[in-house]
Amino acid sequence: MFKNFQEIIDHLKGFGKTPIVVVGEDKDAVEAVYDAHKIGIGVGVFVGSKEKFEKIFKEYEDKGFIKDVIDSKDDEEKCKLAVETVKNEGILLKGSVKTATLLKAVLNKEWGLRTERIITSVAAFESNYEGREKIVLISDGGVLIRPDIDTIVKEIDNAVFVANKLGNPMPKVALLCAVEVVNPDMPETVNAAMLRKMWERGQIKGCIVDGPLALDNALSMYAKEKKGIVSDVAGDADILITPDIVSGNILGKSVEYIGGKPLAVTVVGAAKPIMIPSRADRAESKLRSIALTMLISR
Amino acid sequence: MFKNFQEIIDHLKGFGKTPIVVVGEDKDAVEAVYDAHKIGIGVGVFVGSKEKFEKIFKEYEDKGFIKDVIDSKDDEEKCKLAVETVKNEGILLKGSVKTATLLKAVLNKEWGLRTERIITSVAAFESNYEGREKIVLISDGGVLIRPDIDTIVKEIDNAVFVANKLGNPMPKVALLCAVEVVNPDMPETVNAAMLRKMWERGQIKGCIVDGPLALDNALSMYAKEKKGIVSDVAGDADILITPDIVSGNILGKSVEYIGGKPLAVTVVGAAKPIMIPSRADRAESKLRSIALTMLISR
Repeated sequence: MFKNFQEIIDHLKGFGKTPIVVVGEDKDAVEAVYDAHKIGIGVGVFVGSKEKFEKIFKEYEDKGFIKDVIDSKDDEEKCKLAVETVKNEGILLKGSVKTATLLKAVLNKEWGLRTERIITSVAAFESNYEGREKIVLISDGGVLIRPDIDTIVKEIDNAVFVANKLGNPMPKVALLCAVEVVNPDMPETVNAAMLRKMWERGQIKGCIVDGPLALDNALSMYAKEKKGIVSDVAGDADILITPDIVSGNILGKSVEYIGGKPLAVTVVGAAKPIMIPSRADRAESKLRSIALTMLISR
Repeated sequence: MFKNFQEIIDHLKGFGKTPIVVVGEDKDAVEAVYDAHKIGIGVGVFVGSKEKFEKIFKEYEDKGFIKDVIDSKDDEEKCKLAVETVKNEGILLKGSVKTATLLKAVLNKEWGLRTERIITSVAAFESNYEGREKIVLISDGGVLIRPDIDTIVKEIDNAVFVANKLGNPMPKVALLCAVEVVNPDMPETVNAAMLRKMWERGQIKGCIVDGPLALDNALSMYAKEKKGIVSDVAGDADILITPDIVSGNILGKSVEYIGGKPLAVTVVGAAKPIMIPSRADRAESKLRSIALTMLISR
């Protein structure tokens, strides 16, 4: 089981450099590929205006990170070419095209990357809570606005897929709420109770699901014991499922901006993993996102 | 303006010891009073079974933290006596009585602590983001489940009241969402847009309100600038308003359990400030909650 990102990066080096297919002439995306190349895990395939890319490349003396440039000037065409390229090998990194245009290509029924799974955003950070060193996952602060029960089940499947790739065969999934008791006035707690029961009945597999849990008793054995909570997930959760995009987004950004821990974010559920970075992401977060995405592409 | 909790504690010492009215024979609450006494800001008035309290007191050699014990064996009576005591002086700290029983007494129309304001929970932590040392407030992760617009306005008033007590005459209020754009499919962003307009029209006073903002661009000038957001709040928010209890609770607990920063929590809106601690709170958080509550009681 990978306990931190350095272990993931060391593991990835063993496979040689993975192509990172960048769609759109974005400076930050090129920088991210350059960084991945520098640490020996990535090489870039750039889809977009050759002229614009060449201008960005000028900043770098060592051009070893450039594997290929696929010239295209139309955004829709760029996305199609990138999707087709990534089908063969590598991972997809959004550059300067619009997210909607890229997702439209990804979800194209004829030549896209659509699967039976839903598309979700999975974030990851290094946790060392109470001495337990591990990578904790958060879903979903980026795609699902307010998922219904059936969608949450699929969302859990996607996060479990990532946990499996991290080497965890049976992750503990905490359904986060504001409290650990069921309160009919708080629909999130009602959903959590339903999902736990569904898990007990074998409707959710490959993980242990419990909720409602508040963040303290999901992560901390101290809080779990102080509150006398009986749960096979509480105190040591591997996956934190938030009930909506607001709480998921706030949690992820709090980890990064208040907790000071770089956050890796990847998009799961397409035939190939995708990265849709935010412009405000720092270099360390981008590199971790690339490493996580490479790991789940294998 | 108080930049951190040590400054608040030093300030409180100037007033001599504030009575902390504990309702219910709780070991952790007695410990919190003992700690407040030790640093020179508090002294205890204990309402509950004298016999049970005496047993807890035995642990302490120095009994200087005990100002008075008011003997009562019935929980409802304890709450009434505590409310009457705190009317004269001091702050109220929930011990081993049920929160519902205490709030019923607090909200009693004849002899309670009811005011025109609503009851909200305000949390506070020390932030040093990008070198700006200050105390940032969060509302509401403890009381309001999913407030409507009118309630959010009253909630903002309560948080502004606390910010004023911290010495900030015109706090910047960020309405947290998952994104910084208005999306009709995300009601939180629609509410934020309405609240900003209400502020522009003078319907919310004593602060600067803006939203929708994501947590990164609320706190970070870097994120604000990278995303090109034009806002008089973004990048330097003093108060973070979350749209519901789930996101507020997750944010507060993330600050404490992932960020490793002690969280002070107080209940605002009654005639006297109240503390309703969680059993899982650590000593440092309890002491900060007491200091914050003492500060706003003056």
